[in-house]
Amino acid sequence: MPLLAASNTPLAARLHEQLALVEARFAAELLSDLPAVNSLVDHVERYRGKMLRPMLVLTSGLASVEGQLPLTDAHRTVAAVVEMVHMATLVHDDVLDEADVRRGGDTVNRLRGNEAAVMLGDYLISHAYHLCCSLDQPDVARLVAATTNTVCEGELLQLANRNNWQLDEPTYEQIILRKTASLTGLCCRLGAVLHGLDDARAAALEAYGRKVGMAFQIVDDLLDLTGQEQVVGKSLRLDLRKGKLTLPLIRGLAAADSRQRPVLVQLLTAAAEADEATAPRAVAPVRAMLEQLGALTAARQRAADLLAQAKRGLGGLPGLEARHLLEQMADAVLSRRY
Amino acid sequence: MPLLAASNTPLAARLHEQLALVEARFAAELLSDLPAVNSLVDHVERYRGKMLRPMLVLTSGLASVEGQLPLTDAHRTVAAVVEMVHMATLVHDDVLDEADVRRGGDTVNRLRGNEAAVMLGDYLISHAYHLCCSLDQPDVARLVAATTNTVCEGELLQLANRNNWQLDEPTYEQIILRKTASLTGLCCRLGAVLHGLDDARAAALEAYGRKVGMAFQIVDDLLDLTGQEQVVGKSLRLDLRKGKLTLPLIRGLAAADSRQRPVLVQLLTAAAEADEATAPRAVAPVRAMLEQLGALTAARQRAADLLAQAKRGLGGLPGLEARHLLEQMADAVLSRRY
Repeated sequence: MPLLAASNTPLAARLHEQLALVEARFAAELLSDLPAVNSLVDHVERYRGKMLRPMLVLTSGLASVEGQLPLTDAHRTVAAVVEMVHMATLVHDDVLDEADVRRGGDTVNRLRGNEAAVMLGDYLISHAYHLCCSLDQPDVARLVAATTNTVCEGELLQLANRNNWQLDEPTYEQIILRKTASLTGLCCRLGAVLHGLDDARAAALEAYGRKVGMAFQIVDDLLDLTGQEQVVGKSLRLDLRKGKLTLPLIRGLAAADSRQRPVLVQLLTAAAEADEATAPRAVAPVRAMLEQLGALTAARQRAADLLAQAKRGLGGLPGLEARHLLEQMADAVLSRRY
Repeated sequence: MPLLAASNTPLAARLHEQLALVEARFAAELLSDLPAVNSLVDHVERYRGKMLRPMLVLTSGLASVEGQLPLTDAHRTVAAVVEMVHMATLVHDDVLDEADVRRGGDTVNRLRGNEAAVMLGDYLISHAYHLCCSLDQPDVARLVAATTNTVCEGELLQLANRNNWQLDEPTYEQIILRKTASLTGLCCRLGAVLHGLDDARAAALEAYGRKVGMAFQIVDDLLDLTGQEQVVGKSLRLDLRKGKLTLPLIRGLAAADSRQRPVLVQLLTAAAEADEATAPRAVAPVRAMLEQLGALTAARQRAADLLAQAKRGLGGLPGLEARHLLEQMADAVLSRRY
């Protein structure tokens, strides 16, 4: 389900109409003359989620002009491109994370094997670039490719810090800035650029997108620790099992005194070594201790601060109604339960 | 070692000078500000091989003009791009194939885990597109992206036919045409296009590149069955273990009579179920039977025919000396032992 319901406002309803067109473009681009390919691509449907990135492109586009000026065809194309890039990272992340459940359905790697998941991700990323080239705007294609470079760096930096219980907060922020926020920032910049908005205000929108992306990632981290699998719709308790230190853990370790710290590290290590069956039981004491240390509240507050900053940066945009929609999206990032 | 030695002819020596510039561009594009990323990228060095694809770009470029007109900067960029695309598929193929040895060194997945290999491949493909965008030639970027779409389809079609002992030759040709020959064909077309060669002759060069690519793949298939791991420099006997039916096997099954066929299928099944240690012993009787059926010779003849066709299509190119180099490259594809 998209992050904002169509019933929110008339503009949200218009946004949903546009999202339907984006989905059609997405599906058309992936269609192959080979039935074997189409049958695998069908699995991507299961990954359809909150459509955060297309919504950021479209809403930023609407916020970049006064009045009821419609979005361009390029906006819908870019919206499909960024969603395709995002899907590719999800599919490849599932290989990485040995995740068994994503969006309430079986993951590609579970259904078809890791090899099919690697190839499907490659197919998605290749088609994302191909669709992007159809725009005939080399500057846009360059920005997209530069951003996917950055996303990959973020993933590689995260991988290099696996099982590093000393990971500091600046490095953590570098990771999420690159792997998540660079793409959400790009979405907003492109929405603006395609309507010819000046660079200062396009940069302001990009800054909004980055802060929203960082907050979105922090909320994801919290949901991984505290969410319910049936509600969130994907495998949880994976971060710890994969040795990923996220903000609640970093804040918890920082708040722990010299007596608490070794206890927490021991609990983390036990949770990291748990298998799928024992993970929920191994994570429960970690969560309890993080709660006691105020780390869950602190991480949530960091997300709230980022979103408040994001909203404050939206002054001076021509499209007032769309600007309110961007504010509502920021609020929805914090309040989401899935 | 590149497919043709620098000592072959004066033009081959010039080609090697150009290849050194391509390698420098390749390395510069992959450089990151993150040491963790650079340390992983260093593994790509081990995958450096015959440089077939950059050589096809450069030599096709040289063959597209008369006299000593130098290659353009765009030729070297495209040569680096196609090699990067190829490296990405090698790195991801190693995840797929659980290969332990590639080009005589340990593979990324063995050294750093499958997850690092998936991410490294993504990093390579992203940088390939990024470098390609630096050309500011949307038509070239579109051709590259369309071709990587096709390469992915070939890989997916191959995956869908795993353990299909009924795979027919037309489907096999579709697989190698898409996964290998589409890219080698593109190399030749782009070499020509960047020198403004007319479409008819660019298409002829592309046809040469496709035939060379198909022959190259068939020789690869033969080496997987008959080569020595120390000489070839990568894990062998993998095709059967992964249930990949290649041309020698298809020809063998077609040539087998009703008494021989079930025997061959039984041997294939046993080889497919062998592990790393028992594979050489399980493949030996398959090879012997294929030899007896004339299938190894038949597959080799098919490669030779394709290369003869490839050479015949080279008439009418302005650069005569470079045309001879293309002919020598075709010969080297057949005579190679690694």
